[in-house]
Amino acid sequence: METSAKEGATEVIVVPNDELRKVISDALAANGAPRIVADLQAATLVEGELRGHASHGIRRLAVLVERMRRGLIIPNARPVLEWVAPAVLRVDGNRGFGPAVAYQAIDEAIVRADETGIAMAVISNSSHIGMLAPYVESIARRGQVAVVLTTSEALVHAWGGRGATVGTNPIGIGVPTMNEPLVLDMSTASVSMGKILDYAATGRAIQPGWAVDALGRPTTDAAAAADGGALSPFGGPKGYALGIALEALVGTLTATAFGTDVVGTLDSEFPTTKGDLLITISLQRLGLSGMLPALTEYLDQVRDSGVTGPADVPGDRARRTREQRALGGVPIDNEVWALALKYAEGLS
Amino acid sequence: METSAKEGATEVIVVPNDELRKVISDALAANGAPRIVADLQAATLVEGELRGHASHGIRRLAVLVERMRRGLIIPNARPVLEWVAPAVLRVDGNRGFGPAVAYQAIDEAIVRADETGIAMAVISNSSHIGMLAPYVESIARRGQVAVVLTTSEALVHAWGGRGATVGTNPIGIGVPTMNEPLVLDMSTASVSMGKILDYAATGRAIQPGWAVDALGRPTTDAAAAADGGALSPFGGPKGYALGIALEALVGTLTATAFGTDVVGTLDSEFPTTKGDLLITISLQRLGLSGMLPALTEYLDQVRDSGVTGPADVPGDRARRTREQRALGGVPIDNEVWALALKYAEGLS
Repeated sequence: METSAKEGATEVIVVPNDELRKVISDALAANGAPRIVADLQAATLVEGELRGHASHGIRRLAVLVERMRRGLIIPNARPVLEWVAPAVLRVDGNRGFGPAVAYQAIDEAIVRADETGIAMAVISNSSHIGMLAPYVESIARRGQVAVVLTTSEALVHAWGGRGATVGTNPIGIGVPTMNEPLVLDMSTASVSMGKILDYAATGRAIQPGWAVDALGRPTTDAAAAADGGALSPFGGPKGYALGIALEALVGTLTATAFGTDVVGTLDSEFPTTKGDLLITISLQRLGLSGMLPALTEYLDQVRDSGVTGPADVPGDRARRTREQRALGGVPIDNEVWALALKYAEGLS
Repeated sequence: METSAKEGATEVIVVPNDELRKVISDALAANGAPRIVADLQAATLVEGELRGHASHGIRRLAVLVERMRRGLIIPNARPVLEWVAPAVLRVDGNRGFGPAVAYQAIDEAIVRADETGIAMAVISNSSHIGMLAPYVESIARRGQVAVVLTTSEALVHAWGGRGATVGTNPIGIGVPTMNEPLVLDMSTASVSMGKILDYAATGRAIQPGWAVDALGRPTTDAAAAADGGALSPFGGPKGYALGIALEALVGTLTATAFGTDVVGTLDSEFPTTKGDLLITISLQRLGLSGMLPALTEYLDQVRDSGVTGPADVPGDRARRTREQRALGGVPIDNEVWALALKYAEGLS
C-alpha cells in the first residue's frame, strides 16, 4: 500500500483488492454480520471500487454499520421468498443486506426461468444492493438474459420542474455472448450526487447539464445544486422520461415507495422503502443459445467501428478498469480507509 | 380540409382524423388487405399522426403498399403463435402486418399473464409495428404493466464510432394509474433520420449532437450526416449503451438480425428481419392493483413540481397533441395525401 497523489481534496491510498475485501468483511462481522453475509456485502462494495464507481464502494460502509447498529439492517435476517404466481417471486427482505437477499432471489428465479422461460422477482424491505453490474453479469454468466432495476432516493428533477422528485433509478441489462457478457449498468441521472458534493466541497464549478438550483434553473454552482437543487437526468427530457417510467414500474411491482418517500439507502435513520426488480430469461429453455455466435460477431463489428481504437460495448470499460485494479489495487480515500480499519478492529 | 401554411418546404393540408383513417384503410384494402387488417394498420398510422410523430404516420403508406405488391407483406397472413414455455409466446408473423400480429400476441400474452404473473411474446417475420405508445397504452388500459421493444434499421453510430451500426431501438413502457396511464415511447436516437433528411432537403443546419458525418465527426451539415454519416444516440454514451443493450436483448430473444442486417421496414426490397418483444405483467394476478392510488398521487406531485406550469409525465404531451388533432384534424404533407388518395381510388 502506498499513499498516492491527491485526488480532489483528499489523500488517496491504494489498497490491494483482497485486503479491501477482508477489511470490509471484518468490519461487518465485528458488528454482528454472519461471515457469509459479510463476505457477500464486502464483495459487492469491492465490485463498485473495482469497476470504478466509488459511490457504490467502501464509502457506503459507515452507513451500513450505522444501520446495523440501529436495527435498520438485520444482519442475520431470513428473507421470505414466495412464488405468488408461477413466474413471479415476491421477496420480503426482512431488513436483510441487499446483496444476500438479491442473490437468493436470483438463485430461485434462474431455476424457475429454466421452466417458465421468463421469471421475475420483486424485492422489498431489503437494504441497498449496490451496483447492478455484478448481478446482471452473474445471471448472464449462467446463460440467461437479465434485467435488474432498483429505485433510489429522489435526487433528480422532473424535466421543466424544480426540486428532486425522481430517483436516480438505474437500469441493468446482461446478455450472454460467446465470451464476456454484455453488461449495461447506468443511472438515469447525469452524474451522481456524490460528484456534486465533491465539487461543492472543493469549490469547483460543475458542468452545464449536471444539475439545477432550488428554483429549477440550470446551474454550474455546485453549492447551489447541493442546497435544495437537484441532479439533472441524463439526456434531457428522454432521460427524465425513462427514469420516471422506471420509478413507476418498479415502485408499483415491488409495492414500495415513490419519489421523496423512498428512503433508507443513504441515511441511517429510516427503514429501506425502495424496491428491486429482476427479470431473468432462460436462453436454453427457449432454444436460443444458438443466437450467441451472431450476437458476438455483431458486438465485435460495433467495436471495430471505433474511430480512434475500438468503440466500447457496455461492460468493456468497467472490465478494463476492473482488470487493472484487481492487479494494481484500488484507490481509496484515506479517511474512509482509516474508518474501515477501526470498524474491522472493533475500535469504532 | 384546408391547405395551411408551409411547414418546412412542403404544402400541408389538414385532414380530419376519420377521413385519414378511412383513406389509409381504403388504400390498403384496394391492394388486397382484408378490411379488419387494413383498419388496424390504418389506425396505427393515424395514431402516429395524432400523437405528433409523422415519421410513424401516413408517410409509411407508400412503403407498405409497395411491400404488399412485392409479396414482402402478406396481407392475409396467419401468424403462428406458440407457447414455447409456460410464460413465453413465440410468434412467427409469416410476413403479416405488424399491428395485426402484435395485437394478436398481446391478446394471448395478457390472458397468460393473468395466470403466470408475467408473460413475454417474442415476434419475428412481422412488418413494422409503428409507434410503441398505442401498444403499451392498450395493455395498461387493461390493467397490466407493459414493456414493448423493437429493433430497427441501423441508423445510429457507436459512441466513438463511425457509420451506422445500431438501430434507433425504441423503448415503450406502460403503467396503469387511477386515470390516464403513464406511457413512455422513446427512440434511443437523438432525432429521427426523417428529420435529418428534411433538413438536408431544405439546406438547413442541424443541431449539434444530432449526427456525425461519414468519418464519425460531429456535424451540423445535414447533407454530410445523410451521406454515409449516422444519427447520434440521445444522451451521449449512456443513450448509446442503452440502445445497443436493447439491440442485443431483442435480437437474441426474437432470434432476428443485428445491426446492419436489420432490413425490411424502411425499404421495399427485403423481408423484415427485425424483432419485436413485449412483456406484460398482471397487477391483478399479483395483488398489486392497490398500488395505483399512490402511483397516481406521486405522478401528480411530479406534475406539480413544474416551474412554468405542470411538468409533463410520459404520455402527457402526446395526449394533448392527440386531443387537439382528434378534434381539429391532422396536418399532412400535400403530396403524401395525394398519393394516399390515388391508392385508395385504385389509381396508383
